[in-house]
Amino acid sequence: MPLPQPPLPEPAHPTVDSMLSRRFGKEVANYFSGSPLNRVSFLRPDSTFLSTALVHPSTTFVLFNNLEPLISSPSALATATFSDVKSIIGDSPFGKSEEDVIKEYNSSLYIPQIVFLGLDERKEGFVYKDHYKGQPWFAVDVTPKSSVTDSAGKLIEGLKAKGLEFSKGRMHLSLPAQEAAIYAEARHLLDWNARNPFCASCGYPTLSVNAGFKRTCPPRDIAPSVQSPDRPPCATRTGISNLCFPRTDPTVIMAVVSADGQRILLGRQKRWPQYWYSTLAGFLEPAESVEEAVRREVWEESGIHLGRVVIHSTQPWPYPANLMIGAVGQAIPGGEEVHLGHDAELEDAKWFTAEEVREALRVGTSGLGEEPGPDYRQGGLRLPPATAIAHQLMSAVVNGFASGTPMI
Amino acid sequence: MPLPQPPLPEPAHPTVDSMLSRRFGKEVANYFSGSPLNRVSFLRPDSTFLSTALVHPSTTFVLFNNLEPLISSPSALATATFSDVKSIIGDSPFGKSEEDVIKEYNSSLYIPQIVFLGLDERKEGFVYKDHYKGQPWFAVDVTPKSSVTDSAGKLIEGLKAKGLEFSKGRMHLSLPAQEAAIYAEARHLLDWNARNPFCASCGYPTLSVNAGFKRTCPPRDIAPSVQSPDRPPCATRTGISNLCFPRTDPTVIMAVVSADGQRILLGRQKRWPQYWYSTLAGFLEPAESVEEAVRREVWEESGIHLGRVVIHSTQPWPYPANLMIGAVGQAIPGGEEVHLGHDAELEDAKWFTAEEVREALRVGTSGLGEEPGPDYRQGGLRLPPATAIAHQLMSAVVNGFASGTPMI
Repeated sequence: MPLPQPPLPEPAHPTVDSMLSRRFGKEVANYFSGSPLNRVSFLRPDSTFLSTALVHPSTTFVLFNNLEPLISSPSALATATFSDVKSIIGDSPFGKSEEDVIKEYNSSLYIPQIVFLGLDERKEGFVYKDHYKGQPWFAVDVTPKSSVTDSAGKLIEGLKAKGLEFSKGRMHLSLPAQEAAIYAEARHLLDWNARNPFCASCGYPTLSVNAGFKRTCPPRDIAPSVQSPDRPPCATRTGISNLCFPRTDPTVIMAVVSADGQRILLGRQKRWPQYWYSTLAGFLEPAESVEEAVRREVWEESGIHLGRVVIHSTQPWPYPANLMIGAVGQAIPGGEEVHLGHDAELEDAKWFTAEEVREALRVGTSGLGEEPGPDYRQGGLRLPPATAIAHQLMSAVVNGFASGTPMI
Repeated sequence: MPLPQPPLPEPAHPTVDSMLSRRFGKEVANYFSGSPLNRVSFLRPDSTFLSTALVHPSTTFVLFNNLEPLISSPSALATATFSDVKSIIGDSPFGKSEEDVIKEYNSSLYIPQIVFLGLDERKEGFVYKDHYKGQPWFAVDVTPKSSVTDSAGKLIEGLKAKGLEFSKGRMHLSLPAQEAAIYAEARHLLDWNARNPFCASCGYPTLSVNAGFKRTCPPRDIAPSVQSPDRPPCATRTGISNLCFPRTDPTVIMAVVSADGQRILLGRQKRWPQYWYSTLAGFLEPAESVEEAVRREVWEESGIHLGRVVIHSTQPWPYPANLMIGAVGQAIPGGEEVHLGHDAELEDAKWFTAEEVREALRVGTSGLGEEPGPDYRQGGLRLPPATAIAHQLMSAVVNGFASGTPMI
């Protein structure tokens, strides 16, 4: 199976005879994971670090226009330099301490979003406090709007003249694994900042701090249109509030096998192409374990009663903010009858033999908007590509994840 | 080890010889999971269902005052009936369709929060559409405020006269497992609703719908103080927005073992009692797999470099909204030196022998505010109680989770 599987980040190779690898084998790294960057998250509030990292000659910028990434081809992110983006973000966007930035908050000013993504420690050059080394990566939102309409428009013209473009479409599944992981981090953070301009606790506008990883509700706002600069108290200012930090929604996605281990349950949504099926999935709810969420979702969507559930692997999915938690679940004897009447989410759910799934993984996979390969025969089962964790889960089941030897 | 371990919910017992149980054994169910309720989430928008469930004679209410649950003793939730709460929530809080409730939205009215928790299918009585049966459970916020100050105050007086009380303190770890799971669901949802009265996308007040599981941003507000009832467009109204649904923050927590499998790394925070240590933990960030988050957090907090990471089990943790994802990670050879200088979160982190941890699990565990048992000797390692997933992870390591046989 040709997998755009990212290698584990360095240093991440256990000793060959270590107990964990002995029992569990190599870790499954799904598409969008496997970033080469060290996020050094504790340096994000440090304006000296950010200011020096921003202007280092090795520093690399990925640009987004309305959440569409700049690419040089469908399989390559394009990168930019500080001089490219200076007209948008200014000479010194991290020139003041966070404390001062909060003090001088003015909600009428548009500040293009910058996200510090991390240091690529494989590249030499930039060094901070002797300890933190590597090529700094940032993401910048260059959407032409508000005070940067002209400068961003001009920048975009120039990029287009160089043959670069902002990739249309929602999904970006053709990037090499490590670029995909960098793109995923940037997209998730830019989307979160754009989606949350107001404080859910008090309703006032918020300010991005921590290089894009936090939104704070300033106690004062000196915008001329505001009647009084002092704002009412806000609960997010007393102690640590999760509302200030990026949201990630845990989602369960599961390969369901029959009680005898011979069949796999797949479902389809109405909007999908004909013959296309996938594993069931849904959001984990408050106060559920992963296993409980898997059993609830499978029952609600298909009527199947599951017994044992085992977590297989996880996948970041930045559309907009999911953590996909992949699992394998087994139906209990007598609990295998499909019933679509509880929740109306699926158009169909049915049991397939392992042979059907194995054949479809060989000849019937593609992206949702694409055609399957030349060996696919009309009417055969179609499945998602290897970049989707659904594909990995089905593959794991037909290749014996659960039994230690191929189960079917 | 005396564990308040909830049984798996019915129907959840795989066949004895099923492939999953053969390989993986019994699932670990942590405290706060294992709810006996079927949430029938697809019935939450159905006002006919909610109206009839609310007033059924078997229906049970758990009450909260400022997020503190009503209890009859530290180890028992107290429950109430519809006639108890009628003065707070009114005769027919689900009497109108959701569509009408949204149309008639008036932000000046205080609506006490009601959450539909699920059906206890073990109890007969209530039946809906022939298919959905069981005792309905609801949570109600009876905090005396706004228009219910008097009625809630009176209700609370009456409850106190019966010897009931609202449990002070943040953690509730003495409830029987299934009550703890019901409490966790209720607390997480009430907290989320209370914490998010405004729309993060447009800043306007939002309205609770779906029996407490969704907050919507109505297009009109007929409150007399509002200048124009029609509100500006809001992005959460076009398509499905994650902002409308409860937030759950994925958190990683991990037992770290040395490269030779002989020692366990534990850390402590300054505010903890003397000699008290626990596993490291932290929030998963955008676009990280669970394994990546574990490696990043461990390196940032302790300087240790991890290789292989294996997910052990998960735990809902409703303070306020966490999904704890428990893992075991192994240090790489040469990556075991403790360095606390990256992130300043821990006061100390150090390696303990398995024997020290095993002994502390036997004699040195307790809640944070409690004393350890009589066999504890001053100066010995202290650890969290069995209700914490940290305890389960340490126990799993010294009992051989990773190797199949006790590893140390």
